[in-house]
Amino acid sequence: MKIKGFKTAAIAAGIRYADRLDLGLIFSEEPAVTAGAFTTNQMKAAPVVLDMERLKQGRAQAILINSGCANACTGEAGMHAALTAGACAASALNIADEMVQVSSTGVIGEQLNLEAIKKAMPGLVAGLSPDNFEQVAKAIMTTDTVSKTAYRTVVIGEQEVSFMGMAKGAGMIMPNMATMLAFVLTDARISFPQLHKSLLHGVERTFNRITIDGDTSTNDMVLVMANGTAGNPWIDEDDSSEQQIFQETLGELLKDLALQIVKDGEGATKFITIRVCGAREVEEGERIARTVANSSLVKTAFFGEDANWGRIMAAIGRSGVRISPERVDISFGDVLMVRDGLGQGKEAERAATAILKEKNIMVTIDLKEGTECVEIYTCDFSLDYVKINADYRS
Amino acid sequence: MKIKGFKTAAIAAGIRYADRLDLGLIFSEEPAVTAGAFTTNQMKAAPVVLDMERLKQGRAQAILINSGCANACTGEAGMHAALTAGACAASALNIADEMVQVSSTGVIGEQLNLEAIKKAMPGLVAGLSPDNFEQVAKAIMTTDTVSKTAYRTVVIGEQEVSFMGMAKGAGMIMPNMATMLAFVLTDARISFPQLHKSLLHGVERTFNRITIDGDTSTNDMVLVMANGTAGNPWIDEDDSSEQQIFQETLGELLKDLALQIVKDGEGATKFITIRVCGAREVEEGERIARTVANSSLVKTAFFGEDANWGRIMAAIGRSGVRISPERVDISFGDVLMVRDGLGQGKEAERAATAILKEKNIMVTIDLKEGTECVEIYTCDFSLDYVKINADYRS
Repeated sequence: MKIKGFKTAAIAAGIRYADRLDLGLIFSEEPAVTAGAFTTNQMKAAPVVLDMERLKQGRAQAILINSGCANACTGEAGMHAALTAGACAASALNIADEMVQVSSTGVIGEQLNLEAIKKAMPGLVAGLSPDNFEQVAKAIMTTDTVSKTAYRTVVIGEQEVSFMGMAKGAGMIMPNMATMLAFVLTDARISFPQLHKSLLHGVERTFNRITIDGDTSTNDMVLVMANGTAGNPWIDEDDSSEQQIFQETLGELLKDLALQIVKDGEGATKFITIRVCGAREVEEGERIARTVANSSLVKTAFFGEDANWGRIMAAIGRSGVRISPERVDISFGDVLMVRDGLGQGKEAERAATAILKEKNIMVTIDLKEGTECVEIYTCDFSLDYVKINADYRS
Repeated sequence: MKIKGFKTAAIAAGIRYADRLDLGLIFSEEPAVTAGAFTTNQMKAAPVVLDMERLKQGRAQAILINSGCANACTGEAGMHAALTAGACAASALNIADEMVQVSSTGVIGEQLNLEAIKKAMPGLVAGLSPDNFEQVAKAIMTTDTVSKTAYRTVVIGEQEVSFMGMAKGAGMIMPNMATMLAFVLTDARISFPQLHKSLLHGVERTFNRITIDGDTSTNDMVLVMANGTAGNPWIDEDDSSEQQIFQETLGELLKDLALQIVKDGEGATKFITIRVCGAREVEEGERIARTVANSSLVKTAFFGEDANWGRIMAAIGRSGVRISPERVDISFGDVLMVRDGLGQGKEAERAATAILKEKNIMVTIDLKEGTECVEIYTCDFSLDYVKINADYRS
């Protein structure tokens, strides 16, 4: 897919490794309405601090993204590097510095290789084309094993509106925005308040509901740029049917990317949905689902294909949410393992063990306390997770 | 060590596996002042519920402990089993049912093998002797690789007072009482309020400050029995010098056992102390130390002997405690890795890498926000942790 007015490019700049795509550029020919959601970690990387400040204007024209270095915990030198890298792109694109968003991912605590970025910039800009989106998605990978993109088209006000999204994930993935990088381009004509609202609404229900290892990164962000070239009637009213269509489609695309991230979680062999039903409040259901999804004991049991529901019960019990143990039901797929707090015996366990051999597993926890339902998406915890993270820098 | 008036025994009852010590008994010839601290998990196992109720009287005469089955999430049948097992011991010992504490550890969700316990009881009681303490410590092991005991002697009011303690740990270890089993016997003459206070004081600073995997079990408890045979002047006043000596000695013994548990954490290859200094409040320091100690990314980096301080910074930043990133110092041993939020370069990293090859590692985080210091004890996250927990039931 292409979207009129957007060009992208990627290059092997040698930021950390040679001959590996590690620098990406997204360029909008005209200033695009741009909204972002950023990590809640207090140790915000320099690019995050810079972008948050610049996005107050609600406009951007370019995003420069590097892998191989997070530019986090790098102090004044790191902020200088982010500014300089952005200025270098601005100058090559002949736009104002403030119109450039910068984004970094990789190892924390090392200074950005500015020389490599400066040297690569002419080639990067020369490579801008409407067709390189998938290449940029490759350039932002770190421990990802596959690149992640998603596309959607929808009709708004009789005009076809398109969306292209990319994301990277793999480790340090834990709810609470933002736990990876994701960039979405659309040709929708939408004003900043509606774009921002749609983004936050979508992120809350997608990226903030995935967890791989309970760690939240210093760097991560979701940016969405809308350049208006679709020519649809302006979306500039909250809750108009157009805003709702836009929000829904963006949300679907974000969910698509978020689930791709979980499926490619570091070392993941299983994709697991933890669905909590019968909660009194959404927040309570979420807290329980997250406690279960983040339990190392639960995740290793899934890796071992062990229908060990006792570990799920223990995680529910320590979540801090008041529940009635004697009401809890737990199902794996359509097999009821626990009813009213009690295990359903060897036969149920055998049936559940068969389900655990599948790649996609749905765990349903019914609290029978209320009517709210929440889903959190996660993966198992494998030997490879440890191998990847014990060796990541070597 | 022996303590007058206490006898113990252990036997291979075949509760889950054949020919493995799995049933232990602690017996006090006279009713002993007894205090307990219990798991905060809402999914409390039947023995926990029963013991908490019985300990309202502040007295007990026996503790019956089994491994191989947690008797947790077992409903009314589980409570009946706990009552029956306790009654069986009471009858064999010729004491009242209410004087028996029961304690279980092992797999959640399976019913207790009552027949095995009943059959083993005569042999168990016949085996009671002042010398079997170490045998009982073996009988309560699950995935522990070594048994854990500690001994102390102290003079209180010119009388020698003795303490013997045992514990089991290994997995599902996370602060917030109680995340393992521990039993302490002493001949001190002490009244219940002072015993209970000393126990809670000690547990807060020892067992509640260790973490292996962030999971809190359904079953765990610390019990301390004081039978008074030392003949020391009664300890029955808070903050008397005698109460303080008692509390301090008990605290040291609990810390000894707690650290043994961490050192034998499932798959652990390193013992790690996370020390947070310069916190505004103890609670804030603790929260940061726990977030770092529970981070899978931090723990796998220790396993990989990778001086990856960026992951520690990221964990501090997501702890929820307000800090100033540009003030934070981090040392590994005596090597300053991060000063005022900035990495100290390749040489510091090389020196730190040498420290990471040791078995005991001290990580000091100085927030420079206040004057409070807190230590949390943990271990690394290894391939074996995943292997053990993926295979635990198979």
